[in-house]
Amino acid sequence: MKLTIFSPISLISISLSYYLLLLQCTVDGRSLSPSKPDPKDAAAYARWLVSHNSWGVLNTIFKDLGGAPFGNVVSFSDGLPGKGKGIPYFYLTPLDPTAKNALKDHRSSFTLSEVPLGTCGKVDPENPTCAKITLTGKHSKEAEFGRNALFSKHPEMKDWPQGHKFEVFKLDIADIFLINWFGGPKPLTIDQYLHWKNE
Amino acid sequence: MKLTIFSPISLISISLSYYLLLLQCTVDGRSLSPSKPDPKDAAAYARWLVSHNSWGVLNTIFKDLGGAPFGNVVSFSDGLPGKGKGIPYFYLTPLDPTAKNALKDHRSSFTLSEVPLGTCGKVDPENPTCAKITLTGKHSKEAEFGRNALFSKHPEMKDWPQGHKFEVFKLDIADIFLINWFGGPKPLTIDQYLHWKNE
Repeated sequence: MKLTIFSPISLISISLSYYLLLLQCTVDGRSLSPSKPDPKDAAAYARWLVSHNSWGVLNTIFKDLGGAPFGNVVSFSDGLPGKGKGIPYFYLTPLDPTAKNALKDHRSSFTLSEVPLGTCGKVDPENPTCAKITLTGKHSKEAEFGRNALFSKHPEMKDWPQGHKFEVFKLDIADIFLINWFGGPKPLTIDQYLHWKNE
Repeated sequence: MKLTIFSPISLISISLSYYLLLLQCTVDGRSLSPSKPDPKDAAAYARWLVSHNSWGVLNTIFKDLGGAPFGNVVSFSDGLPGKGKGIPYFYLTPLDPTAKNALKDHRSSFTLSEVPLGTCGKVDPENPTCAKITLTGKHSKEAEFGRNALFSKHPEMKDWPQGHKFEVFKLDIADIFLINWFGGPKPLTIDQYLHWKNE
């Protein structure tokens, strides 16, 4: 984009357009946090990626489809705004295969991309500098702990039909696959991930 | 967004901002096709969703992780621009677990959301009016047929390191899970999906 071709009126336009773009690309006013962490800091990067995304693909084993790995787009939250803990919570209805699958077989993973955050620039979504993370573990029903985390990030959830019997689910993480630069997956333990603190 | 509060200058701003938003949200100049199909037309909607997206989550069975379903963010293409056929092709390196998994166990699925297309408005990513699709089937190495489809949509792929031994993979679709409105998954056969034609 060449700014030099724009007149002063257009400069106002550009300011406005960035504002609108930001509105378009945020969920409930959450900032995109354009100042992403240093890719060398795997724990900080992984936690940033999880806390700032609002949706991803939750994967379960679908017995009725020959035991296929079945991905499903879901919203999630890892905590109240600015207080994410890295553990993803979901709000699922048993009308949806993912919740039913998880109750039969807890094996699961949850996959996120940096693309929705708008911070990958012009590189391809599969370019390793555009980060991606897969948290693998056990996915099961959770008490009400995750409800506030979910409703604060996804306000419309509280009005979803009661008849659909939505319940809070949680992923207990056993493995982390993070790519955020060249050179293959970043070594990152569950302990480093869960106990990372933003100093 | 209330247009009534904007002055004539701001109307120019709005036009420009939509243009910039469109630039931001396209891959290699492909249009977002804001005129999405009628949700009642399941085949048209599914094909539109697959043709206009540029990345998604590809799922395989990860034997080394206890047979967990393992999602991985990948780029894909279903054909040359404007000539998508609905079958997703991928360009994967055996350095990545997904390609290795697929060679051991072909069971796979590929999941896409409408969110990246920017056409969901203000609804939550899990709201059923914001469409999602999961194509389940067998995922395996493919001859060179998919290469042009991939390189036309993801030009940087042709320069990815030869030493990484990238190869074209393909998903043979056996089941389609589409949600694009209230009322649960849309009935849609493989035949209806693959033989849909834009009249």
